[in-house]
Amino acid sequence: MPRYRFTVEYDGASYNGFQAQKDQPTVQGALEAAIKAFSGQDVRIAAAGRTDTGVHATGQTCHVDLDKDWPARTVMNAMNAHMLAERVSVLDCVPVSDDWHARFTANGRKYLYRILNRAGRPAIEQGHVWHVKKELDAKAMHVAAQYLLGQHDFTTFRDAQCQAQSPIKSMDVARVTRVGAEVHLVFEARSFLHRQVRSMTGSLAEVGLGRWSPEQFKAALDAADRIRCGPVAPSDGLYLTGVTYDTES
Amino acid sequence: MPRYRFTVEYDGASYNGFQAQKDQPTVQGALEAAIKAFSGQDVRIAAAGRTDTGVHATGQTCHVDLDKDWPARTVMNAMNAHMLAERVSVLDCVPVSDDWHARFTANGRKYLYRILNRAGRPAIEQGHVWHVKKELDAKAMHVAAQYLLGQHDFTTFRDAQCQAQSPIKSMDVARVTRVGAEVHLVFEARSFLHRQVRSMTGSLAEVGLGRWSPEQFKAALDAADRIRCGPVAPSDGLYLTGVTYDTES
Repeated sequence: MPRYRFTVEYDGASYNGFQAQKDQPTVQGALEAAIKAFSGQDVRIAAAGRTDTGVHATGQTCHVDLDKDWPARTVMNAMNAHMLAERVSVLDCVPVSDDWHARFTANGRKYLYRILNRAGRPAIEQGHVWHVKKELDAKAMHVAAQYLLGQHDFTTFRDAQCQAQSPIKSMDVARVTRVGAEVHLVFEARSFLHRQVRSMTGSLAEVGLGRWSPEQFKAALDAADRIRCGPVAPSDGLYLTGVTYDTES
Repeated sequence: MPRYRFTVEYDGASYNGFQAQKDQPTVQGALEAAIKAFSGQDVRIAAAGRTDTGVHATGQTCHVDLDKDWPARTVMNAMNAHMLAERVSVLDCVPVSDDWHARFTANGRKYLYRILNRAGRPAIEQGHVWHVKKELDAKAMHVAAQYLLGQHDFTTFRDAQCQAQSPIKSMDVARVTRVGAEVHLVFEARSFLHRQVRSMTGSLAEVGLGRWSPEQFKAALDAADRIRCGPVAPSDGLYLTGVTYDTES
């Protein structure tokens, strides 16, 4: 049974999250319907990250097992041809061995959070950025973000509904930079807790607004107490940008 | 009568162009309705560029005369407060002297054209880029674009409905660069003919696809004949990014 790995981009604003749900538009539902339409197969795909409602992806990674040995390029083109009305696009597709798994063999996830930091509301990027009117101190946010690096109990930045067994995670990259009128936050880790990026971003924004010092941010992290989290940033600005694997196939 | 200059961003996909038309959603119509809503005045605004249906702006420049001497910040905030349902946003607002004119004192317009150059359809940037699947040679496009610099008869790149008195224009900047999966074309000139940027971009794409050499592009320009224009690029990827003036107020 040939297995295919494929990269997916989607506009999260159009979907009730990634994961398939009965009678709700989801990214997984759109992908599985497209596969059914060209192959006739009822499949269940696997994905590296089950993003929330409204969260976007430019580099979600999935796999699917098909009965027939289609050329990978045909799988990609056929899926895209059946998703013209969707805000989902398959960017590439390659055959992989049957012990490669989009979720279980992933060893890293990368997220980007985009804040539009200016007085005027976003007319073009509406739904694709978090609009913060007051000027943010991106350098102070970056200083605070460095406290996230390494292994920590991330309970402060973990949603109450998180189903992970442990709140202990290890952060490899936490970077805050100003890019024109935007402030970009980049996070990389083996895996993340539920709403961890939005929780960290909302708290780092408190630092950027001058309400918290970087040291107060560190104290909130160290407290390992959800009550110490700042306001959770909205889904609009969050993008799953990439997934890494030990082996590529 | 105090005059205010203001910068406007808009998503052209939601409007039948900039210029006000009876019973059609236009950017000018949205702006004038917002001014009416907070000031009670029936005004006619002036703008540097009357962009076509579907064309976006990140730096359109306008002016309006108001009866009352409002603080400029109040004008901006009031307009934005009355455009929450629109895809139009006022980015800044300053008082200017009454001989400053958004259109007639402008001495330069800047446009950006964004091509998404990859196999997969844009899921997130749909309507905001022109999707070209085949790989474009951006360097060859840039070489060809240099022939546009200086003064030329731009009849080849002028729409049949253009109302300008002369097809002679002078191009100050014509630059093509690859930015990740996108190819960006930047053009700057005192003024442009109707659909000139989309006409030039479509013809430069022929160069990028290897169908025309840079010299064939030059020959098409030199012919000063509309029939020699390549396919006109769609409005989706076009942005008016800025306007320059001799004096700022």
